[in-house]
Amino acid sequence: MRRKLGILETDLYQLTMLQGYFKNGRANQQVVFEAFFRRLPFNGGFAIFAGLEQIIDYLKDLHFSKRDIGYLRRTGLFAEDFLQYLLNEWHFNCDVSAVAEGTIVFPNEPLVRVSGPIISAQLVETAILNAINYQTLVATRAARLVIAADGDPVIDFGLRRAPTFAGVAASRAAYIGGVSGTSNVEAGRQLNIPVSGTHAHSWVQSFPNELEAFKAYAKTYPKKCLLLVDSYETLKSGLPNAIKVAKEFLPDSQLFVGIRIDSGDLAYLSKEARKMLDQAGLTKAKIVASNDLDEFIIADLKRQGAKIDIWGVGTKLVYPPKSLGGVYKLVAAELNGKIIPVVKISSNPEKTTIPGEKEIYRVYDKNGMMLADVLALVEEKIFDQKEIEIKHPDIEYKFDKLQVGRIEKLLIPIYTYKDGLIYKSPKLKEIRKKVQEELKQLPEEYKRFINPHIYRVGLTKKLFGLRKKLIQEKLDRR
Amino acid sequence: MRRKLGILETDLYQLTMLQGYFKNGRANQQVVFEAFFRRLPFNGGFAIFAGLEQIIDYLKDLHFSKRDIGYLRRTGLFAEDFLQYLLNEWHFNCDVSAVAEGTIVFPNEPLVRVSGPIISAQLVETAILNAINYQTLVATRAARLVIAADGDPVIDFGLRRAPTFAGVAASRAAYIGGVSGTSNVEAGRQLNIPVSGTHAHSWVQSFPNELEAFKAYAKTYPKKCLLLVDSYETLKSGLPNAIKVAKEFLPDSQLFVGIRIDSGDLAYLSKEARKMLDQAGLTKAKIVASNDLDEFIIADLKRQGAKIDIWGVGTKLVYPPKSLGGVYKLVAAELNGKIIPVVKISSNPEKTTIPGEKEIYRVYDKNGMMLADVLALVEEKIFDQKEIEIKHPDIEYKFDKLQVGRIEKLLIPIYTYKDGLIYKSPKLKEIRKKVQEELKQLPEEYKRFINPHIYRVGLTKKLFGLRKKLIQEKLDRR
Repeated sequence: MRRKLGILETDLYQLTMLQGYFKNGRANQQVVFEAFFRRLPFNGGFAIFAGLEQIIDYLKDLHFSKRDIGYLRRTGLFAEDFLQYLLNEWHFNCDVSAVAEGTIVFPNEPLVRVSGPIISAQLVETAILNAINYQTLVATRAARLVIAADGDPVIDFGLRRAPTFAGVAASRAAYIGGVSGTSNVEAGRQLNIPVSGTHAHSWVQSFPNELEAFKAYAKTYPKKCLLLVDSYETLKSGLPNAIKVAKEFLPDSQLFVGIRIDSGDLAYLSKEARKMLDQAGLTKAKIVASNDLDEFIIADLKRQGAKIDIWGVGTKLVYPPKSLGGVYKLVAAELNGKIIPVVKISSNPEKTTIPGEKEIYRVYDKNGMMLADVLALVEEKIFDQKEIEIKHPDIEYKFDKLQVGRIEKLLIPIYTYKDGLIYKSPKLKEIRKKVQEELKQLPEEYKRFINPHIYRVGLTKKLFGLRKKLIQEKLDRR
Repeated sequence: MRRKLGILETDLYQLTMLQGYFKNGRANQQVVFEAFFRRLPFNGGFAIFAGLEQIIDYLKDLHFSKRDIGYLRRTGLFAEDFLQYLLNEWHFNCDVSAVAEGTIVFPNEPLVRVSGPIISAQLVETAILNAINYQTLVATRAARLVIAADGDPVIDFGLRRAPTFAGVAASRAAYIGGVSGTSNVEAGRQLNIPVSGTHAHSWVQSFPNELEAFKAYAKTYPKKCLLLVDSYETLKSGLPNAIKVAKEFLPDSQLFVGIRIDSGDLAYLSKEARKMLDQAGLTKAKIVASNDLDEFIIADLKRQGAKIDIWGVGTKLVYPPKSLGGVYKLVAAELNGKIIPVVKISSNPEKTTIPGEKEIYRVYDKNGMMLADVLALVEEKIFDQKEIEIKHPDIEYKFDKLQVGRIEKLLIPIYTYKDGLIYKSPKLKEIRKKVQEELKQLPEEYKRFINPHIYRVGLTKKLFGLRKKLIQEKLDRR
């Protein structure tokens, strides 16, 4: 992507902490951070991970320029020896693992894991979260829209409602989540996403009347003629004019692509429009609908038999109602020469962390369907087990024994201290395909929009025991 | 700002329409578009306009590069003569007027007005909306937070939750709206916004215990020592340790800046913390609070006497729950050699447009307080009136006679066909100051968070009559 996150796109406290580590001789303390979210967006049953490629772009050649240092100097907060260190010596010398983009993910799963000296691992928190929070949210929304559309194409119309400068990232995440195309031309150029679009109300309004506007459009686009029919009256004016143009002004009425409806009751209007088109012999003509759609509205329109073939979604796709709220937490730190797991207790149990450097294992049943995910410490070997016992993080009597069909490790090495970047992102199309393949392996009950079943993300007995012990130690010290 | 909107950050339909205008000999048809929103964000009583500078950056030197044309050619949608026209002849030859950034604005007011040949005016819709929709939303949220904080500083902590690449735009809008500083270092560098931040939980967790972590921080920042006290137990551990460090390890305990609380009940904890600090003689120490705050929570905490001096707001500031939903609509077009106003009727009355190229006049009462806004046709002269009659756009019997104290025209020429850019944005600090000055002139009843009074945006009699006539003509033609 043309846009890149910069090294100063970080919170000031990362830099003041860096100086603190530096000045206290702790720069090389080994630590492990994990980025995760706590709640599924949309009160849904799954999320689609996206944003890794922007993290990779960011980590590639990450360094402080003289201009960056000049600004930091001007803040008056930083000592010269520290600034010289940042300019001449600091580099990103961590190991990074991450879940592949397009993977189905759940709360508490480490999506990005960074281990290495604290002076490197601390700095990158803000940019990592900036990359994944928004794109994971949009990709998840897109996947839900595509599920609701049940085989019909969904098109991203969101650029005008996307946050300033976030438009291409939004279209990218939407495409990963499964939309078929975008109106965003820059996203088409940069990412090779299929672009689509025909005309707006202003086209119709700029002509003396609708029929002339449609005729002019048909003349310019005889093979790509899709007409927006709701500028005046959809059924009394738009449809009759569109049908007239298709039959009398196109070289072949079977070339007529169809109509778009952007207002009014989309169920009623689409059914009436379908009848009128069919009666005119335009049975191949498509009906595109748009107007503040989301997965709930699409599902409800389909339930009522709306005759819509293609769904255009803008605002609700690129500006979902709530941030994902992803966080980046310390899970292990070197103390007295040994890296030990750390836990942070919160009065809100949901916010108490899961300690230790972890892996995510995805367990499939014998039919290849997703059964549960297992969080385990990196040193645990759980690949050869036929049965895995998992435990609820907080409720001691809640546990399950999983009969393992197949097991898969989700975290992939992305970047190493020694070799730098060691991972190449798949093509966007491949990522998009992965999402659809994974969704086939996710049982239906997790795909409901309202009150879905809760997918199990359990801890191994060892991890559960460690967490319990660390929490108890903390409480004892109070 | 370093990031700029590009010419292909537009919807494909703008380009297909452009080709249509070109191919139908209509490229130079004179038109007027206006950008506006229909509903105030947050169900509030006002909005703060922001995003104009990004429009200016975009319009400056707006042209199609060879690479842009190369991509468009590859889509297969465009004829070579049109592509050559875009590459060699197309330029942005419109007049643009806009409301100054930092102005209080209301629904249906033209925030940006573009008049000129349709082949220029149509293209820029998407980027204009992308610039103003998000930034106006964030600036408005910021202004509300600042009102709730009632004189206390509010700091932007949002970068990690800002949409990918939108972080600096978010911090900019937040600063316009009135926040005092930001954690976003890049926003500090690019825009000279004061930056602030100290340390995170990870600082504390990376030390063997809290006291050592605080001591190390105090050693590094003896004059900037602000400690996050909720890593373990705020009142039993964090406060006693912070007080110990302030009194025993700082060269002068009066240099102690204060504490931050990021979890738990902020009213209770801040009151207890204040007592403990005061009892220790640290009466000047500040209490900073953060944790998913918004204006409703801040107001309620203050109502209960929370002893919080500085408010850190992240997610809810840079990711408000709903898009502004701004639109860009054709209001006049040249037909048969004459520019005539156009209206678009919708079955939803709220969506029926207000026709004609318009001005916004802000009317103040004799005490200098905002009384109402008047939408008038550009050709109307209303400056010399002592009394102005305004009408509700839809409800014929709803009208008011305004006793004019002072009157102000809100739209400013920004760009002209002849001279290009003719406006220089004020410094960000000036824009921020303007917001606070304007808010002083907005009566209290419009600043309520819940169920505020509705500010009047009326039409002149002439504009009302024109709209009524145009709507009637449309209905008659059905």
